[in-house]
Amino acid sequence: MSNSIRDGFDRMWAELEPIGRDAQSRGYRRYAWSDADMDCRAWFQVNARRRGLDVETDGNGNLWAWWGDPDAGDALAVGSHLDSVPDGGGFDGPLGVVSAFSAIDALQASGVTPARPVAVVAFADEEGARFGVACAGSRLLTGQLSRERALSLTDVHGVSMEQAMRSVGHDPSRVGSDPARVARLGAFIELHVEQGRVPIAAPDGSVVHGLHGCGAPIGIGTSIQPHGRWRFDLSGRADHAGTTALVDRDDPTLRLADLVLAARESAAAAGAVATVGRIEVVPNGVNAIPSLVRAWLDVRAEDDERVRQVVSDAEAATGTSAQEESWTPGISFEKDLTDRLSAALAPRFGDLPLLTTAAGHDAGILSNAGVPTAMVFVRNQTGTSHSPLEFVDRRDRHAGVFALADVLSELC
Amino acid sequence: MSNSIRDGFDRMWAELEPIGRDAQSRGYRRYAWSDADMDCRAWFQVNARRRGLDVETDGNGNLWAWWGDPDAGDALAVGSHLDSVPDGGGFDGPLGVVSAFSAIDALQASGVTPARPVAVVAFADEEGARFGVACAGSRLLTGQLSRERALSLTDVHGVSMEQAMRSVGHDPSRVGSDPARVARLGAFIELHVEQGRVPIAAPDGSVVHGLHGCGAPIGIGTSIQPHGRWRFDLSGRADHAGTTALVDRDDPTLRLADLVLAARESAAAAGAVATVGRIEVVPNGVNAIPSLVRAWLDVRAEDDERVRQVVSDAEAATGTSAQEESWTPGISFEKDLTDRLSAALAPRFGDLPLLTTAAGHDAGILSNAGVPTAMVFVRNQTGTSHSPLEFVDRRDRHAGVFALADVLSELC
Repeated sequence: MSNSIRDGFDRMWAELEPIGRDAQSRGYRRYAWSDADMDCRAWFQVNARRRGLDVETDGNGNLWAWWGDPDAGDALAVGSHLDSVPDGGGFDGPLGVVSAFSAIDALQASGVTPARPVAVVAFADEEGARFGVACAGSRLLTGQLSRERALSLTDVHGVSMEQAMRSVGHDPSRVGSDPARVARLGAFIELHVEQGRVPIAAPDGSVVHGLHGCGAPIGIGTSIQPHGRWRFDLSGRADHAGTTALVDRDDPTLRLADLVLAARESAAAAGAVATVGRIEVVPNGVNAIPSLVRAWLDVRAEDDERVRQVVSDAEAATGTSAQEESWTPGISFEKDLTDRLSAALAPRFGDLPLLTTAAGHDAGILSNAGVPTAMVFVRNQTGTSHSPLEFVDRRDRHAGVFALADVLSELC
Repeated sequence: MSNSIRDGFDRMWAELEPIGRDAQSRGYRRYAWSDADMDCRAWFQVNARRRGLDVETDGNGNLWAWWGDPDAGDALAVGSHLDSVPDGGGFDGPLGVVSAFSAIDALQASGVTPARPVAVVAFADEEGARFGVACAGSRLLTGQLSRERALSLTDVHGVSMEQAMRSVGHDPSRVGSDPARVARLGAFIELHVEQGRVPIAAPDGSVVHGLHGCGAPIGIGTSIQPHGRWRFDLSGRADHAGTTALVDRDDPTLRLADLVLAARESAAAAGAVATVGRIEVVPNGVNAIPSLVRAWLDVRAEDDERVRQVVSDAEAATGTSAQEESWTPGISFEKDLTDRLSAALAPRFGDLPLLTTAAGHDAGILSNAGVPTAMVFVRNQTGTSHSPLEFVDRRDRHAGVFALADVLSELC
């Protein structure tokens, strides 16, 4: 029986693997409302139908595959997302969705009839790679992102989210908060690939790094750190690269250098992480001093104060007021739920490590909205994510499926 | 009579002014082989025909409007280029072409019959804004850029120069060096807007800055400084912006900061100018540590050694070997020709200042190819170029026309 569950997982994985993969970088470019996104959604529909689950696409593009009556209440949702960052890995998101389908296979194979409705969910536009706001699907659903702001967000080609939705046949008039749909949910469990190697206190009091350091295939999430994104518009004066004396220049690349170095130094001092991952130069000509450099700063830390300190240091270093593009407060998952997960997983895995994470997740957005939420992490061989190097070996993928099946059995 | 020359200039200027102008930046985007470039070329053809000049487009896309028999030999070419940098000003290039047509008007109105053929020339792709190699048209013509390299250059959208030429009906099989055409030329005079405010020794021994500082509408070019462009591929490791500890990162934006600051410091020490005007980040996602930052460094100075020193300091600071994308040695224009220009202009303008320039020009490329060459600069009210702020007032535009007419009279 277990082998057919594993085979089912591998088959689903193989079907999903080529979609949106760049031939050169070997990374994924599954951006919201793109052709690749549509192909991932078709994959979801096919796999839901194979299991006899009813699929709904909600007004914000989140996909729900129902086992049982959605309106019975106290539903248990399990899943993650299918979109990617530019040239991201294949596991961040999809691992949670594929594992959810496989966990249902395991329950169905065991003859379990759940006492509450179960849904496999794939949230829309979790990475925010195209329109700049992460977890757009779950934020819209729970009213944490306004319909007006979302629809007017634009991608690098100037295409708005509204236009992007229309172009693939999704009606943007359906976008917006949906309290009735949120009220159906009794709990949400998100399984996710481990990202980075966080310090974990071992039973003997020493500190190890990540699930690899613990020798555990699975970890239980306890919290999400606060994080935000800020845009720095570093303005200068366009001028000729050859004929303008250094002293006559107002060159914004110097302020870009200050931003990068100040953010790094301040983050190191505060125990935070800071990243300038996106830079746009205007006009971006080899022989033109730029008139404008736009740089985006991503900062995360254990608490709000440390994050704010890094942003404020970067503003001081550049003499620029940053524009806050997103802010997600820190989240602690419900201890009761986390304890039930630990108990449910102990027979198969023993005591599992508890992890905090600095990555944002739909689980955090739902927790903010009052839905009891927990996370299960699966060991990443490289620790690296948002990169083609992200990797979960086959044995650990299957361990994640059985962990999720154990959790569903316990909670149903 | 002078008024009709001035009116003719103003009319040509007004016809050219809207072509390729961006409504928002108010700068120009006249890139090689673009629709805007084609519109500029049509403007050139119309204005040549109005004056009874025969137009040729040579194999490399350079435009020639002939007054007299091209094959008579010892031709005097006068002109500049029509393309622009991204969001450049309207004068850099076009001022030389419009002034050349107007100077011919002035000669024709005076009843001058030139003793040698005269050509108005507009060189193709002088700025190199689209394909990265400046003076592509004149370099190809004179064999200083190979046909194979040129045709395979690509723009930011991956379109090759060959494809770009085909898309507007220019046959790329005609591209390449054309010694017979170069051999026709007895001299080339390029009129150009002043760029920057170079230090000039005043008659009393003090130093003033630019033509504005001299109170002169016109200057005579004596030399072009050496300059080059280098590409730095600063590689790192793609990783998640939230979950990767600072110490575990290989973040290429830190090396970008080092490049910007080291180039500036080294240039200041060497009396050079250095600019990082173009930056490309891969994958350029807000929440992704980049795997690669590409940055282009433009360096110019009085002599080769100073330029090489800045590049070498930037390489040391980043631990990266830069790729040389272009290198143009310094040029001194023929003193005989410069002296004749000074003499020809003295009756109208008195003693005119002699200027060096750190900007590259087709005049430099032709001088390299053995064509006697000189330049005439027209005062720029702001000193700024490669920017919408570049500005020549109406009076000085007309002064440029009469200066060029005086030079043509002298040389014909």
